[in-house]
Amino acid sequence: MMENYKCVVVANGLFPSGELALRILNQAEYIIACDGAVVHLEQHGIVPDVIVGDLDSLPEELCTRYANRLYQLREQETNDLTKAVRYAGEKGIREVLILGATGLREDHTLGNISLLLQYAPDFARIEMLSDYGLFTPLLKDATLSCRPGQQVSLFSLYPHGMVSTFGLRYPIRKRRFLYWWEATLNEALGKTFSVVLEEGAKVIVYRQM
Amino acid sequence: MMENYKCVVVANGLFPSGELALRILNQAEYIIACDGAVVHLEQHGIVPDVIVGDLDSLPEELCTRYANRLYQLREQETNDLTKAVRYAGEKGIREVLILGATGLREDHTLGNISLLLQYAPDFARIEMLSDYGLFTPLLKDATLSCRPGQQVSLFSLYPHGMVSTFGLRYPIRKRRFLYWWEATLNEALGKTFSVVLEEGAKVIVYRQM
Repeated sequence: MMENYKCVVVANGLFPSGELALRILNQAEYIIACDGAVVHLEQHGIVPDVIVGDLDSLPEELCTRYANRLYQLREQETNDLTKAVRYAGEKGIREVLILGATGLREDHTLGNISLLLQYAPDFARIEMLSDYGLFTPLLKDATLSCRPGQQVSLFSLYPHGMVSTFGLRYPIRKRRFLYWWEATLNEALGKTFSVVLEEGAKVIVYRQM
Repeated sequence: MMENYKCVVVANGLFPSGELALRILNQAEYIIACDGAVVHLEQHGIVPDVIVGDLDSLPEELCTRYANRLYQLREQETNDLTKAVRYAGEKGIREVLILGATGLREDHTLGNISLLLQYAPDFARIEMLSDYGLFTPLLKDATLSCRPGQQVSLFSLYPHGMVSTFGLRYPIRKRRFLYWWEATLNEALGKTFSVVLEEGAKVIVYRQM
């Protein structure tokens, strides 16, 4: 399923080393690099289609080599990941997988995870994959695939609405989550599980890889 | 200041590689290892004073070698970090620095960060250090040291109370934070900054190292 992502955004966190992420990257039809991520892509012999960001930290040599695919946005209100995702949206891209968005500075990790819920309304599908797990933002009910025993966490970034789950070891029934760790460290029972959201609830589902 | 920590709890996330963390570890008078963290400590030639956890995953050889310092707690409701921190509290230890609590599975990272606020009432000082930053839970007003230009984030895990800051580039004045990323990515102006909490607000301050 994830292998179907044609557009990949590579953020400036820890570059993925997992087999799945690297396979997706190598098969992607369109790659957007957030600023300095191009340095890591180059080390893997991958040329991004466009490099988005304020580009201040990009080495001169790479600026010259990739001159025909730079898209400079200096605006300070959003981070490079948001600029790259917006660029994809403006290009009419409807499905995006984000790689390299966690693993270094924890403030960036937390910010990038939470931003998924901001991006979600503008895409048919947008997810974030790390070497450890897959983040899926949910704005409405969904049934998701899993393997029996897979570790599943729900992050409630939003202290509104009621959440229920079906198919997890520790069932959640019409609960409000005030704190974002309250629905973490659950476990899938079968090959799918469902999340039901009421009264404007929004969650990010994390499936451990 | 951080070098003064006599008790260090080493969690089971990414083992620290930063110079500061390793120096603190080598100077610590008392080291509590969460379960498998003892494997990494051993690679650094460090013997923990006690190993706390369910110990199910500890290699047989290490179980034998460290038999006189194992403290097995099988209870499933809390994670190994919580067990280790509680052990420190029960020993009468009042100041704890946690290392190795982030960097691998993001669900564990998020859980461990948020747990700091649960631990805070039981200690005079408890903080968490990674290779990227220092996490400090605040239950009341505080003035914290910093260097001019240092990146500072506040994580509001708790949708209650009002937060103000003094000495940061983007001032916060009596704001309520519904979402935990809302007060991130700020910057210190001088050598200290202050956080004022009203109406039961609780935050975690992150200073980039």
